[in-house]
Amino acid sequence: MPALMALRKRAQGEKPLAGAKVVGCTHITAQTAVLMETLSALGAQCRWAACNIYSTQNEVAAALAEGGFSVFAWKGESEDDFWWCIDRCVNVEGWQPNMILDDGGDLTHWIYKKYPNMFKKIKGIVEESVTGVHRLYQLSKAGKLCVPAMNVNDSVTKQKFDNLYCCRESILDGLKRTTDVMFGGKQVVVCGYGEVGKGCCAALKAMGSIVYVTEIDPICALQACMDGFRLVKLNEVIRQVDIVITCTGNKNVVVREHLDRMKNGCIVCNMGHSNTEIDVVKIWKRRVRSQVDHIIWPDAKRIVLLAEGRLLNLSCSTVPTFVLSITATTQALALIELYNAPEGRYKQDVYLLPKKMDEYVASLHLPTFDAHLTELTDEQAKYLGLNKNGPFKPNYYR
Amino acid sequence: MPALMALRKRAQGEKPLAGAKVVGCTHITAQTAVLMETLSALGAQCRWAACNIYSTQNEVAAALAEGGFSVFAWKGESEDDFWWCIDRCVNVEGWQPNMILDDGGDLTHWIYKKYPNMFKKIKGIVEESVTGVHRLYQLSKAGKLCVPAMNVNDSVTKQKFDNLYCCRESILDGLKRTTDVMFGGKQVVVCGYGEVGKGCCAALKAMGSIVYVTEIDPICALQACMDGFRLVKLNEVIRQVDIVITCTGNKNVVVREHLDRMKNGCIVCNMGHSNTEIDVVKIWKRRVRSQVDHIIWPDAKRIVLLAEGRLLNLSCSTVPTFVLSITATTQALALIELYNAPEGRYKQDVYLLPKKMDEYVASLHLPTFDAHLTELTDEQAKYLGLNKNGPFKPNYYR
Amino acid sequence: MPALMALRKRAQGEKPLAGAKVVGCTHITAQTAVLMETLSALGAQCRWAACNIYSTQNEVAAALAEGGFSVFAWKGESEDDFWWCIDRCVNVEGWQPNMILDDGGDLTHWIYKKYPNMFKKIKGIVEESVTGVHRLYQLSKAGKLCVPAMNVNDSVTKQKFDNLYCCRESILDGLKRTTDVMFGGKQVVVCGYGEVGKGCCAALKAMGSIVYVTEIDPICALQACMDGFRLVKLNEVIRQVDIVITCTGNKNVVVREHLDRMKNGCIVCNMGHSNTEIDVVKIWKRRVRSQVDHIIWPDAKRIVLLAEGRLLNLSCSTVPTFVLSITATTQALALIELYNAPEGRYKQDVYLLPKKMDEYVASLHLPTFDAHLTELTDEQAKYLGLNKNGPFKPNYYR
Amino acid sequence: MPALMALRKRAQGEKPLAGAKVVGCTHITAQTAVLMETLSALGAQCRWAACNIYSTQNEVAAALAEGGFSVFAWKGESEDDFWWCIDRCVNVEGWQPNMILDDGGDLTHWIYKKYPNMFKKIKGIVEESVTGVHRLYQLSKAGKLCVPAMNVNDSVTKQKFDNLYCCRESILDGLKRTTDVMFGGKQVVVCGYGEVGKGCCAALKAMGSIVYVTEIDPICALQACMDGFRLVKLNEVIRQVDIVITCTGNKNVVVREHLDRMKNGCIVCNMGHSNTEIDVVKIWKRRVRSQVDHIIWPDAKRIVLLAEGRLLNLSCSTVPTFVLSITATTQALALIELYNAPEGRYKQDVYLLPKKMDEYVASLHLPTFDAHLTELTDEQAKYLGLNKNGPFKPNYYR
Repeated sequence: MPALMALRKRAQGEKPLAGAKVVGCTHITAQTAVLMETLSALGAQCRWAACNIYSTQNEVAAALAEGGFSVFAWKGESEDDFWWCIDRCVNVEGWQPNMILDDGGDLTHWIYKKYPNMFKKIKGIVEESVTGVHRLYQLSKAGKLCVPAMNVNDSVTKQKFDNLYCCRESILDGLKRTTDVMFGGKQVVVCGYGEVGKGCCAALKAMGSIVYVTEIDPICALQACMDGFRLVKLNEVIRQVDIVITCTGNKNVVVREHLDRMKNGCIVCNMGHSNTEIDVVKIWKRRVRSQVDHIIWPDAKRIVLLAEGRLLNLSCSTVPTFVLSITATTQALALIELYNAPEGRYKQDVYLLPKKMDEYVASLHLPTFDAHLTELTDEQAKYLGLNKNGPFKPNYYR
Repeated sequence: MPALMALRKRAQGEKPLAGAKVVGCTHITAQTAVLMETLSALGAQCRWAACNIYSTQNEVAAALAEGGFSVFAWKGESEDDFWWCIDRCVNVEGWQPNMILDDGGDLTHWIYKKYPNMFKKIKGIVEESVTGVHRLYQLSKAGKLCVPAMNVNDSVTKQKFDNLYCCRESILDGLKRTTDVMFGGKQVVVCGYGEVGKGCCAALKAMGSIVYVTEIDPICALQACMDGFRLVKLNEVIRQVDIVITCTGNKNVVVREHLDRMKNGCIVCNMGHSNTEIDVVKIWKRRVRSQVDHIIWPDAKRIVLLAEGRLLNLSCSTVPTFVLSITATTQALALIELYNAPEGRYKQDVYLLPKKMDEYVASLHLPTFDAHLTELTDEQAKYLGLNKNGPFKPNYYR
Repeated sequence: MPALMALRKRAQGEKPLAGAKVVGCTHITAQTAVLMETLSALGAQCRWAACNIYSTQNEVAAALAEGGFSVFAWKGESEDDFWWCIDRCVNVEGWQPNMILDDGGDLTHWIYKKYPNMFKKIKGIVEESVTGVHRLYQLSKAGKLCVPAMNVNDSVTKQKFDNLYCCRESILDGLKRTTDVMFGGKQVVVCGYGEVGKGCCAALKAMGSIVYVTEIDPICALQACMDGFRLVKLNEVIRQVDIVITCTGNKNVVVREHLDRMKNGCIVCNMGHSNTEIDVVKIWKRRVRSQVDHIIWPDAKRIVLLAEGRLLNLSCSTVPTFVLSITATTQALALIELYNAPEGRYKQDVYLLPKKMDEYVASLHLPTFDAHLTELTDEQAKYLGLNKNGPFKPNYYR
Repeated sequence: MPALMALRKRAQGEKPLAGAKVVGCTHITAQTAVLMETLSALGAQCRWAACNIYSTQNEVAAALAEGGFSVFAWKGESEDDFWWCIDRCVNVEGWQPNMILDDGGDLTHWIYKKYPNMFKKIKGIVEESVTGVHRLYQLSKAGKLCVPAMNVNDSVTKQKFDNLYCCRESILDGLKRTTDVMFGGKQVVVCGYGEVGKGCCAALKAMGSIVYVTEIDPICALQACMDGFRLVKLNEVIRQVDIVITCTGNKNVVVREHLDRMKNGCIVCNMGHSNTEIDVVKIWKRRVRSQVDHIIWPDAKRIVLLAEGRLLNLSCSTVPTFVLSITATTQALALIELYNAPEGRYKQDVYLLPKKMDEYVASLHLPTFDAHLTELTDEQAKYLGLNKNGPFKPNYYR
């Protein structure tokens, strides 16, 4: 991850995280290791637990432990193990965290529940996931958020890469690896035209599929029209499509009634979040191979269900290193920002990453593409009323 | 403009603008006429002047006058005429405006300068243009804005249509009408990868051009990379390109030094704003036909300059009715919102159009595409924590 | 036209057409002038008439005459003038043509009819158009073709440029100039998926239109499917589309019954050949501006008919110089080939341009794009069994 | 494979292959089983061997044997086994083949060498592969071809699907499965712009890669330009690209000198034919996982070589059933054509599949896409001079 390397290098030996004591709770992977080493090189002490009972790469956990990091995680933890690990991570004699890096909100939740006093020393929370961010906004609404929190999930760079650009590739990859389907000429309906839906639609259209879109939001609906997709209700096309893809973030988007009307061989999968979009609980399935089930009707009609309706791109393709690098760099910068912010800049609220930091994350990744940024002249900066080093856009710019 | 018709129809005889006295200053075109009739049908009284000395369609002005509207404008006004018209529009016995609809800020400026007391009765300003919005933010910063103002320029729907979708088509149209250039295989550099730049790049790439991009903002730069464009500094490619297009909103993006290095026959044009992007003031030109000049070097090298560096899409192509309809509908809704807002909702500040109104504008245009929106079930709305009628997205969503 | 210049240059003073006496019958335009000068520079004597009564550029004809060429043509000839010019062109004392360059077959037809003895000296015919080529094949079938003829219409390079690449641009240009229609979100049906249809479909899809295709040939139909277009019968979509484009080369593709079922405002145009595709003869029309008619139904429904059903790209857009250059270069090379071919290479039949010449035309146009061709090594040429200078593909390769 | 089913059904109980004795030598897969069953249902007797020592699916071979077919093949044959199987297949008492279905020419070669007298009874050869077809043309040139042969490799339908449409998907699939590379923003050079190269370029461009093309044929080169690709020599870009893809059909396209100049991490793979395109014989490699080798330089630079330079799409992705169906249907029709052709239609030469059969293959696959073909009216057919059932295009049409 050259961006984190560049970040270290640009620090030029300074330690912006000197004195920081970070407890983290994320997937334990090779990329996380590089992040922890970077935080450490920038002056922080780190203790870590896993945010998911399955995703820990044991060899990475072992290597980190050998390297002197306190890591509490292994692949295949039980529910009890999971909370025990988190507890061991934060509850240690003679060491109190002053920063939280969370992915999903479980660590934050645990501290709230068990060690609320810890928040007196904590300078801030950096939260990665949709779910964790949602919990923080609820805490904030309820007036219970007692430290500043940084919502890195909604930073522009991360959003575009996690969703639009990453899904544009992973929808193809996930479908090919599981089904070997040919895309050319296939009829596909994509439910939802947010960033994920836009990525899926663009990729499939480019491969020669005929794509229909469903939407609830008229703005996104109009964008789908202008991008060349027929905007329909699911029922209008469900009998004719070869592939159904959900990316709404909603629940029960595809239900039994739809499955009943699909044609034989139709492929159904989910690119949205969690596993709520396709209501497949009570239907009889037959596993044909890893991540692929056939739902078989009495008349022998078969529906091909991928990843049991869970996220196709997490289950059946890989997340490119480049995307993980954007996430890790964003997290590191958010920690630095919160830790070093002057008193009063951040209150007990949820914040988006400052535009300038978001731009900085992007700039650290440009060398990968041998991309050459233009600099404003003094005269131009003055004309635009901008600082030559940014931020270049208003905060709401996407 | 069926969307304005639909707006009227949905009002079902109610008069949300009853009592409103609107002074407007926009281009006087057939579309403006429909807008004025709509405002009138919704209960408003209207007086209008032109925001541009060239753009008035005299037959429209005449027809409006015949129809009983007070319109002060003609094609080819002098500078003095221009301000006389604006003055006649606002300065009338026994009638005081309570709403301003402005495009460029000249009308607002005039009232500030000549009739500041009018603001006591004015409930709000609706401003259309980049320049006008800029002026309003400056007033606001300086603490001099004395009524609420609605920045309709930055509403999502308008931005996407005015910039991304409209420019995707008008860049091709403008270049073809002026030069008959074949796009296939041409090397093109597009300066700036905002919405306008994104539209230009997408269109030219689709037509088989090889497109390079320059950017100052690392986030937009990274997007250009992911969309498949080489990110360069202008100097790196200026010798080899066949077409140079500016869309930065900046000044002096293409200067004499660049022109000197371009190859014979290179086409130079501006899709950004105003006429500042290309510095062509002192160079000897020869008009070869309307909107097309040749800049000729002593060694006979010719550069083809379009529209003297002014906006290509305004000068050399047409703005589709559909785009104008989006603008007019947005303006009408903004007037209704400001006029009917309960005391205290809006302070002396500049506001973006509420998300819900933005979505409403979009929804009024969906029937044109025979597009069928999906409705949330009660259960889904509850799950998402949304009202079934929207707004569906946070305000910062683009 | 730099390709013709390059052709002259590569001849290095040799005169491959020394002794050639060419009678030509083509559009008389600036490009034709360059062709005639090139033929002359390569040693030929030329006499020319126009192949169309409207298309002559009088100033070009005048300049050619001044330059010593015998040109018989003016803009707006009568039918009688037309044949008189052709006759003057061929029937001259003390000069007998030995090569024919024809576009449409009228010149060839005239000589057949009036001066059949001339064919004794004629070494060959180069024919440009679909119609002219069709006539030659009929002569050949009937055993009446008495000299070799070169069908340059079907050379790969010409076909791709005249049809696929040129139409990809001119369909957009023609529609914009006549109707200012916005392409995004529009539903379009394209009748015919040959090269012209492929170009139209690709362009409109790229601009965000939803495109349906009709076809009679299952191979082209399958290609349409793989390229992402719904293959339908015209009746299935005629009620819902915004634009109808014919490019079949057939007759009565759009008939009264279809017009009756189109929706209000539907645009109808022809990119195929001649004016047979849309059967509009007996319908009442109103001219709204040049090339645009409204067909108005008793219930006020309006259909927008472009160019009266004649070729949209010829009537309402321009043919890029680049495409004309390909044509002229192909014609010049075909003349050289036929004139210099050893006895017996060509019999009394219709021939396609030899692959090698077709490749040569292409190679003369590569410098325009700063394109760098790779050369085979001796070892590679041997491995492939090819001559290093081509031809590189079998004759049937497209 | 519904197309073969449809073929059987349309035969309506007739046995166009009654009396045919087919020896086949192809990959032994599930699709081949369906082909053999189809041939059998149409009246043929079949004996089969494998054309490749690795590709036999043992369970398919077993099932065919159980079903009464004589199949001589297993996965992992030795060289000796291979020829023994072929010999057993053809050399059997009391049974003499009268048709050959070959893929690669080994079966044909064996009969020529060992049992030349068999050709007295053989009515024709159907050959599938580039290599096999090449051998047949050489036999023909040498005057040694003693029966008619059908080159099904070059039929339009097969070419487009095997090459253009299939590779458009498999290049992405092969790269993702082996390297998880993100395509967005990557610089890629594609060597060769034939059908395979066109497919690769279109896919990668659509995914946001920046694609350069090398070509030896000026016609293909010009097409690359018009499609928006920079045409370069390999040396011009070799230092900067992230991915190198060969699809030339040539040898030594990427050689040591190129590998030396590539940047660290560059991915190199072959989509052309055989394993000659990349000269990697003598370089030290380290296998990192199946199909992926690292070539490591003394300075630690690594090149990622896929499939040892063999065909990426065969080694690292799957061929869609749809493409296999096209091949099998084409083979079946070619057998029927040769077997039933009246005396004298085919001489001792190599033939392309008649256009009408090619169209028939396509038509059998349209129902998969719910594609509705338009039928000519009598009047239209007459106008075009075509039979209503085709063929619709001249033989050279691609």
